[in-house]
Amino acid sequence: MTTVSEQATWVEGADGSLFDIDNLPYGIFSHGDEPPRVGVRIGDQVLDLAPVAASDMLSVAHLFEAPDLNPFLATGRSTWSSVRTWVSGLLTDEAERGMVEPSLVPVDEVVMHLPVTVEDYVDFYCSLEHATNVGKMFRPDAEPLLPNWRHQPVGYHGRAGTVVVSGTQVRRPRGQVKPPEDDAPSYTASQRLDIEAELGFVVGAPSRMGDQVAVDGFEEHVFGVVALNDWSARDIQAWEYVPLGPFLGKSFATSIAAWVTPLEALEPARTDLPGQDPQPLPYLQVGANAGYDIDLEVVLNGEVVSRPPYSSMYWSPAQMLAHMTVNGASLRTGDLFASGTISGPDKGERGSFLELSWGGKEPFFAGGRERRFLEDGDTVTIRATAPGRRGRIGLGEVTGTIAATLG
Amino acid sequence: MTTVSEQATWVEGADGSLFDIDNLPYGIFSHGDEPPRVGVRIGDQVLDLAPVAASDMLSVAHLFEAPDLNPFLATGRSTWSSVRTWVSGLLTDEAERGMVEPSLVPVDEVVMHLPVTVEDYVDFYCSLEHATNVGKMFRPDAEPLLPNWRHQPVGYHGRAGTVVVSGTQVRRPRGQVKPPEDDAPSYTASQRLDIEAELGFVVGAPSRMGDQVAVDGFEEHVFGVVALNDWSARDIQAWEYVPLGPFLGKSFATSIAAWVTPLEALEPARTDLPGQDPQPLPYLQVGANAGYDIDLEVVLNGEVVSRPPYSSMYWSPAQMLAHMTVNGASLRTGDLFASGTISGPDKGERGSFLELSWGGKEPFFAGGRERRFLEDGDTVTIRATAPGRRGRIGLGEVTGTIAATLG
Repeated sequence: MTTVSEQATWVEGADGSLFDIDNLPYGIFSHGDEPPRVGVRIGDQVLDLAPVAASDMLSVAHLFEAPDLNPFLATGRSTWSSVRTWVSGLLTDEAERGMVEPSLVPVDEVVMHLPVTVEDYVDFYCSLEHATNVGKMFRPDAEPLLPNWRHQPVGYHGRAGTVVVSGTQVRRPRGQVKPPEDDAPSYTASQRLDIEAELGFVVGAPSRMGDQVAVDGFEEHVFGVVALNDWSARDIQAWEYVPLGPFLGKSFATSIAAWVTPLEALEPARTDLPGQDPQPLPYLQVGANAGYDIDLEVVLNGEVVSRPPYSSMYWSPAQMLAHMTVNGASLRTGDLFASGTISGPDKGERGSFLELSWGGKEPFFAGGRERRFLEDGDTVTIRATAPGRRGRIGLGEVTGTIAATLG
Repeated sequence: MTTVSEQATWVEGADGSLFDIDNLPYGIFSHGDEPPRVGVRIGDQVLDLAPVAASDMLSVAHLFEAPDLNPFLATGRSTWSSVRTWVSGLLTDEAERGMVEPSLVPVDEVVMHLPVTVEDYVDFYCSLEHATNVGKMFRPDAEPLLPNWRHQPVGYHGRAGTVVVSGTQVRRPRGQVKPPEDDAPSYTASQRLDIEAELGFVVGAPSRMGDQVAVDGFEEHVFGVVALNDWSARDIQAWEYVPLGPFLGKSFATSIAAWVTPLEALEPARTDLPGQDPQPLPYLQVGANAGYDIDLEVVLNGEVVSRPPYSSMYWSPAQMLAHMTVNGASLRTGDLFASGTISGPDKGERGSFLELSWGGKEPFFAGGRERRFLEDGDTVTIRATAPGRRGRIGLGEVTGTIAATLG
């Protein structure tokens, strides 16, 4: 993909940080009363792209005045690469410093907005360990993995309209639940509110209805990656999900990071999948380096409670994309598809409280006491880092605080 | 709701037709090289709203120049009602005829477009007979209805990006299937391609995240109704749907009518639900006249093969809406939610080929021969009519022809 500068950036404090010149994620920021527009993060600064691109008379400069990344995402891989090379040059070439520096805004002075207007949102179920854990808990007397699981990345459509940016408060949802000991369902605030630590993949280049996107079309269509928290009300979900799948147990909120990390920045993180047995059908076959070595941390009220490794995922993002379009379903700019909960083989690598507390039966410890599900006032932050060309790079974090239910 | 004229329309051929003055559905049309914009159907004519509204200096005139109904839908119930009264007056008052008549275009001279840019699409499962039939076929040794079914309108999110307008060709999807007699899945074109005859409800007025829309908020938020065909690949669906629900078996295409019938036009069609036992939880309780007496016809290659009665549906549209938002999920202008397959108690009232052919085991007759699932070249049209203030009114039909798979 893109060749980026071998030089260090002149932006103070950025070199060697998680947001070094090898990273350069995109987001939508606003400063004071100015309208939201496109920024690139470098260190603790946001580069306001629109004025710099206008000064440089870039043909795509107007795309950076948009209130979402969608117009830029729609341009496709070749423009994404050119712009990345240009930004990298701006931030490494001392000669550009005078022109660029006035357009740097400290990240703690801006408000971040939802980076992408999400069109269709699909959530997959790609972790062998997560699927196995859930199977053991919900069907203790049966084979934990369902028969289709090793043959296809199983997924479902989620609610795009409730995808929110990191920092948005999440209100405890209400709905129907029916605990096993009750004869009839009741209406209540969820008592088993949970997180799912995931990565989301943002589609840039669309495809036509009827066409299939092959596994090797991944880099052509997908722009980048966000940390994602698929908030889940386990009690609502358990009662509703047979036979049409999760609905209200998920649709109240899904949080994504404010910063979209381009695939180019994650090139050094590519790694082999752990292995697929049986071999999938040809349309799902991938070669070496199909996975990503991205390490997540789940932080509950400031304390790390889990370290899910994305490298443990069974199905790769290119396989999700190929499967999602094998029936000819079209892609739109702004489509978002997510990995499903990332859980590694170790107990401390589980990406949901459901697994960390084994369905609430084996509480875990945090804040000096036993914890099972989310309590009002809890703040959960998911952080992710990956090997970069030199040091590690950071994905934008995704955080949210639970507010009490209304009424 | 709105008071409409008691007079007949001056538009020739419209009085007493399915698109009489009591109907007045909205759609997006284009004529020749002109850009798509908003039209209202009267008889066999389309009223080009933008120029007439501009002449009358309506404050909302610019909304009718849009390429979808969304800006008009976003205005809410009071504007919808005012515009309906205004259109009704234009088409009944002889004094307006000279100004209005030049803006009537014959419906067979226009191209119809997708009427609504669909935001989130949710499909429910509201027919007791359909759910029971499917249960009997798929779980012959168990209680056909699942435990949650009588307590909530079960639903799932579908793919909004592949909702297409009536007349769009539907290509036979490919994907993974695993017939019971096979040991492993295979990749193939679907051999069990099906329809689902449904009605879809179009959301106009949005709601805020965290808020619930009560059953009595239905008329405030929902603008109107479309006939809908939820094309379904039963073999792909059967292999994928446990545990996360239907995905690729549905996501390749969903067709909707080009004309959105306003709720006002369907007021005379309101009728009681067949009855709910047990009584649902308070947030789902509705009174008299919660249902609609709308009769559908499924037409295969010109021959009526089924007559599903919407009046037989167990769950009402207001209940779907209240359930969909009980967890605080927000509504957006352009959200679409559908009833699920409409099947009545009689064999000739089933809304899918799956049921009409009892899973392919008991073929039905059409075109002088045995039929099970869809064949390449088949055209399926779903028509719907309802009692109006005087005669019957017609919903716009939804039609599609099956094209052979690619490759």
